[in-house]
Amino acid sequence: MADEAAPAIAVAKDRSRVLGGTYRTFYSEPLTVASARGCTITDANGEDYLDAYNNVPVLGHSSPAVRSAVSAELGRANSHTRYLDARVIDYARRLIDRFPAHFESVVFACSGSEANDLALRLAAHATGRDGVIVTRHAYHGTTSAVAAISPSLVGTEVGEHVEPIDLPAWDAADFDDLLAEAIAGAARRLEVRGHPLGAFILDSTVTSDGILEPRSLAATAGAVRSHGGLWIADEVQSGFGRTGADWGFQRLDLIPDLVTLGKPMGNGLPISAVLGPREIFDDFGAEQRYFNTFAGTAVPVAAAEVVLTALESGDLVARAQEGGRLLENLLIDAIESSATPALVRRNGLMVGIDFETGGITTESAVERAKEMVERLYAERILVSTTGRAGTVLKIRPPLVITDDELRELASGFARVLARGEAEAAHAGE
Amino acid sequence: MADEAAPAIAVAKDRSRVLGGTYRTFYSEPLTVASARGCTITDANGEDYLDAYNNVPVLGHSSPAVRSAVSAELGRANSHTRYLDARVIDYARRLIDRFPAHFESVVFACSGSEANDLALRLAAHATGRDGVIVTRHAYHGTTSAVAAISPSLVGTEVGEHVEPIDLPAWDAADFDDLLAEAIAGAARRLEVRGHPLGAFILDSTVTSDGILEPRSLAATAGAVRSHGGLWIADEVQSGFGRTGADWGFQRLDLIPDLVTLGKPMGNGLPISAVLGPREIFDDFGAEQRYFNTFAGTAVPVAAAEVVLTALESGDLVARAQEGGRLLENLLIDAIESSATPALVRRNGLMVGIDFETGGITTESAVERAKEMVERLYAERILVSTTGRAGTVLKIRPPLVITDDELRELASGFARVLARGEAEAAHAGE
Repeated sequence: MADEAAPAIAVAKDRSRVLGGTYRTFYSEPLTVASARGCTITDANGEDYLDAYNNVPVLGHSSPAVRSAVSAELGRANSHTRYLDARVIDYARRLIDRFPAHFESVVFACSGSEANDLALRLAAHATGRDGVIVTRHAYHGTTSAVAAISPSLVGTEVGEHVEPIDLPAWDAADFDDLLAEAIAGAARRLEVRGHPLGAFILDSTVTSDGILEPRSLAATAGAVRSHGGLWIADEVQSGFGRTGADWGFQRLDLIPDLVTLGKPMGNGLPISAVLGPREIFDDFGAEQRYFNTFAGTAVPVAAAEVVLTALESGDLVARAQEGGRLLENLLIDAIESSATPALVRRNGLMVGIDFETGGITTESAVERAKEMVERLYAERILVSTTGRAGTVLKIRPPLVITDDELRELASGFARVLARGEAEAAHAGE
Repeated sequence: MADEAAPAIAVAKDRSRVLGGTYRTFYSEPLTVASARGCTITDANGEDYLDAYNNVPVLGHSSPAVRSAVSAELGRANSHTRYLDARVIDYARRLIDRFPAHFESVVFACSGSEANDLALRLAAHATGRDGVIVTRHAYHGTTSAVAAISPSLVGTEVGEHVEPIDLPAWDAADFDDLLAEAIAGAARRLEVRGHPLGAFILDSTVTSDGILEPRSLAATAGAVRSHGGLWIADEVQSGFGRTGADWGFQRLDLIPDLVTLGKPMGNGLPISAVLGPREIFDDFGAEQRYFNTFAGTAVPVAAAEVVLTALESGDLVARAQEGGRLLENLLIDAIESSATPALVRRNGLMVGIDFETGGITTESAVERAKEMVERLYAERILVSTTGRAGTVLKIRPPLVITDDELRELASGFARVLARGEAEAAHAGE
C-alpha cells in the first residue's frame, strides 16, 4: 500500500496540525474515507474495505432511507423540546413500547456519554447514594463523570466513589453467583468509604472487557438491589438488535432500572436516550431542570425513526441472530483448520475472537490480535481489538451485512491466519 | 387561541406521558411546531410565529443550503474520527483560521455541555488546579461536571470547588476593575478551601445573568491569570457572529486560553468544539484518550461548513451589527413612547430588555417580563426571559432576520407594551 498512501499521509499531517493531540487513529497507516455505502468504505485511492467494525451505521453507511428521512425533515422543522413536536412524541412512544412496562419515560441526549452521565445523576438522586460499581475494564464515555467510572480510559484514576470489580472467568459455570459475590464485596467497600452503592452499570455485551456471553445475571441483579443500588443497563453497544434481541439485557434474565441508548440509535446522527420508570424522572425533574438543546430535535429523531422501524420489523434482530450464527460457524471452522488457538465469543453479531487461550501469554496474545487487525486491514477488512489487555478481535458490522460479506470476512480471517502461521514457521526455520 | 388549542393539548398530554418529568415547555399553552422556515415557525393550526428567540438556526430554520449540504453528505460518508476525512480536517483548519494565532487546535464534541465539560478537564489538567469561578447565575450545560458549575441550574448546590461571584452593576464605569477584585477574592476563598483557581469560565455575552455589555475585561483577565487560572470563553451563545464580531470575546479586549463553541455551529445539527493552544491538548492527550463517537463526523461538519462560510463572508457579523442597531433604536423608541420603564442592553443581535429599573421591585419586573413573553406569544412573536431573577426579555433571532421582521418585532413589542399599560390603567380605575 505504500505507493498509494500519499493522500492519507497528507491528510494525516494536516490532521495532526489542526486536531488536538487527544485524537487517535486506527491502523499503522490510517484509513482515509472518501465514501461509504452499506458495509463498504472506499478510501482516497478508490480501494474498497469491508466494514466489519462499525456498529453506528446499523442500517449501513449512507443508508438511502435515513438520507431521505433526514433530508425531508431538514426541509420541515428541527426545533428543540421547549416546543412540542408530534413527531418526536410519537417516536418516544414507539421506543418505549419496545421495552418492558416498567419503562415509562424517555429523556433524550446527544451521545452515549451524555446518556450515561444523566443516568448516573438520576440513580444518585433516586437512591441518595453515589457509589458506583463497574467492571475492571469498563468504558462508559467521555464526560468528566463517566470518564471517572471508566477504568479503561483513566486506569486506576477512577473516582473514590467507584469500585471496579474483576469479572469471573467468562466460561465459569457459576458466573452469575461469582459476580453476585463480587458485587457484594464491592458494595461493602463502597459503604466503608462513605459512598454506599447507588448503581451498578454494565454494558450488556461486556464489550470493553472482551465481549463476554453471560447467560443469566439474575443473582447479580439481586445482589445489586439488596445492597441498595440500581441496575443501569448501558445499551449503547448492545441495543437495537445487535445481540439478536431488541436489547442486550433481554438475554440476561433481568429487568434493569435504567437503560441508556446511543451509537446505532440514529444510524450516525447524534442521538441518545435514557429510559426508566416515570417516577425517577419526575422526582429528579421536581428538583432540577435538564434541557439539552440538540437532544430529541426532529432531524436526529427522523433518522432514529428509520432505525426503530427496522427494529420493529424484526429485521435487525433476525440478521444479528442468523448472521451471527453463520459467522461464528465460519470463524470456528477457520480456527480449527489452523494451528492458532483462539476462542470465539458472541452475542448476536457482536463477535469477539480471543487469542489469549491455549497457554500463550497475554503479551503474545495482544501481539497476535494487533497483527491480525493490521493484516486484515491489508486485506481490506476493518476490525479492531478489545478486552482488558487487547487480546480480542472486535467484530460488529452494520446489521445489513450479507451472508456473502460474512463469508468474505471469514475467508479473509482464514487467509490471514494461515499467512501468519506460514511466516512464523518461516521465521522459525 | 382557546378554540385552536386542541392539537397542542393532545400532543402535550402524550408528551407528559412519554417524556420524562425533566422536560419543561415554554409558554402557558405550549407551541406545537408543524414546520419552520427562515424566522417563521408555523404551528399545528397553520398560524405563523416570528421567531425572535432561537439562535441555533443562525441561518434560519430549514435552511436550504444546510439541507443540501447535509443531504449530499448523507449520501457520501459520515465516519468517525478514528479514520481520516479530508473534509473534516479542512473544516477544522478553516475554523481555526478565524481565531487569533494562539488557537492552534480544535477538538470536536456533540453539545455545548460536552465542550464545556471537556474544557474544564483540559484546564484542570493544564493547571493542576480544579477551582472554578463562575458568575452568580451562570449556565454552562447539563453534564454532571458542568451542572456543578451552573448556579442557574443547581442553585447553591454547586461543587465545593466552585465560587459563584456577584457581578458589578452592569453600567458601572469601573466594571472591569470591580470584577477583577471579585475574582481575586473568589480565588483566595478557593485557595483556602483547597481548590486553587484553575479556570474562570464566562459566557462572553453574560446571557443567563441578564445579557450584560462589558466593554473591556482586560483587568479581569489579568486577575484570573495572576491567580493561576485559565480563561475559558464559553462562546456557545456568543459565537458565530451573534455579537457583531466573529466571537464574543473579541469585544472584551482579551484573548482567552480556551474557547468553547456550540448552539449555532451546525445550524441545528449537533456539533460543538473546544479550541486552544496545541500544547494543552497534547499534554492532556499524552495521558488520557478522548474519543467522541459522533463528534466531528462528516454530516454535522457539512452543516457547520455552511455556517462557517456565512461567517467568513461577513454576512452574519454585518447582520448582527446592522440588525442589532436597528432593533435597539426601535425598541428604545417604543419604550420612550410608553410609560413603562425598561433598559435595552445589547451585544449585536443578542438583546436584553430589562424591566428592573425605574424603582419597580424585582418581583414586579419578573411579573412584567413574564407577561410580556405571553403577550408577545399571543401576538405570534417568540421570545423568552433571562437574568438572575428573570426580569429580562431575551431576544436573539436567527441572523437572517430581515429589517421588516425586526420592525414587526418592535411594533409587536410596542403594541403589547401599550395594551399592558391600558389594562393596568383600567384595572386601577
